[in-house]
Amino acid sequence: MGANSSDSLTPAIAADHPGVGELFAVLAYGEISAFYRLAEDARMSPTLQGRVALARMAGAEMQHFETLETTITARGHDVYEAMAPFVTPLDDFHSATHPSTWLEALVKAHVGDGIAADFYREIADSLDPSVADVVREVLAETGHSEFVVHEVSAAVASSTQVKDRLMLWGRRLLGEAITQAQYVMAQREALTELVITASGDLNGIAALFDRMQERHAERMAVLGLV
Amino acid sequence: MGANSSDSLTPAIAADHPGVGELFAVLAYGEISAFYRLAEDARMSPTLQGRVALARMAGAEMQHFETLETTITARGHDVYEAMAPFVTPLDDFHSATHPSTWLEALVKAHVGDGIAADFYREIADSLDPSVADVVREVLAETGHSEFVVHEVSAAVASSTQVKDRLMLWGRRLLGEAITQAQYVMAQREALTELVITASGDLNGIAALFDRMQERHAERMAVLGLV
Repeated sequence: MGANSSDSLTPAIAADHPGVGELFAVLAYGEISAFYRLAEDARMSPTLQGRVALARMAGAEMQHFETLETTITARGHDVYEAMAPFVTPLDDFHSATHPSTWLEALVKAHVGDGIAADFYREIADSLDPSVADVVREVLAETGHSEFVVHEVSAAVASSTQVKDRLMLWGRRLLGEAITQAQYVMAQREALTELVITASGDLNGIAALFDRMQERHAERMAVLGLV
Repeated sequence: MGANSSDSLTPAIAADHPGVGELFAVLAYGEISAFYRLAEDARMSPTLQGRVALARMAGAEMQHFETLETTITARGHDVYEAMAPFVTPLDDFHSATHPSTWLEALVKAHVGDGIAADFYREIADSLDPSVADVVREVLAETGHSEFVVHEVSAAVASSTQVKDRLMLWGRRLLGEAITQAQYVMAQREALTELVITASGDLNGIAALFDRMQERHAERMAVLGLV
């Protein structure tokens, strides 16, 4: 939880904080880039079930995008202009973590989304409810993690080599995600100010990244990657 | 309209006709293959707006897929087993009509979906309402045809060469669609029997294809391809 947790009475960050628009915009482009990453990675699926599972997740990302687009437009901004600053860092994250196997693709779909969701949920706790509700809505499970958990844990149980490679892969996903998050914040003053306020202070941000690391480890454990 | 048009009192085809399950299955795999075709073709988009427009259409296809999956499962069938016979013909249609430019991709997204929708709507008129409602629901506009119409008609207005190439492209899409439809029917007895019953007789099928051709021409005209 940030300095202003969900059970505090007055959220630190008002709906008109300049960083809120940037927060919605980075979330919006995150949905678009996730859509295309899932659609592309699905081509590695050995089964129709796998292709359908990733297409479902991608479809859910688009529903979340449309929620964000409505919100951004209602706030008087153009969604494409708003997303523009986040295209390069998010595309860079995906090209830096391009899966080379179907199992890596599944782990990325599951763990990557989880890392992002942890970050935004922590922030949401300090946002005005009208803003926090949108953030939480678009972070809702894209579903079908059962499929990923089943596929990955079965493969991991049957091969130590596969397990070792996927554990390294998971670590790399977390590292790249934090690198890109820091890059984005270095670029966007208002968003950075929002994150610092949400976290309390710079120590709060360090603590936030520690908690993200813990949740990441829990998520990996669910996949048998422990 | 087929022999049993929507205003006739008793639809020719009962909900338990063996072809109905095949009809839902071919529609279901149609959504999956359309999803992946749109996601792949979007990579040719020169703008983020274009990528978002195709991602939206692809997302809508997945919502339609989930409706069909629910229906197929409720009828006691496995959706993957049911779709299996239709994977090759539909994949063949897409590889035979692989767009080489962004404009060809847009025309295919718009005109291709339209051709399929015309065919299934004609059939729907003869189906038991419980079946027809599902068919019509999943044929609902995937939206954003305004985007396609705007992009294509602008390009066509500015170049006769572009226009001529896209007119040939549209003709090819219709030809390949009818070829694959006939191939599918040659393979699936129950589905063929359903289509013949819906059309009245073999002359009815010929008339159906004539009407599809007319609607195709109207759709091309909207894009400035006349």
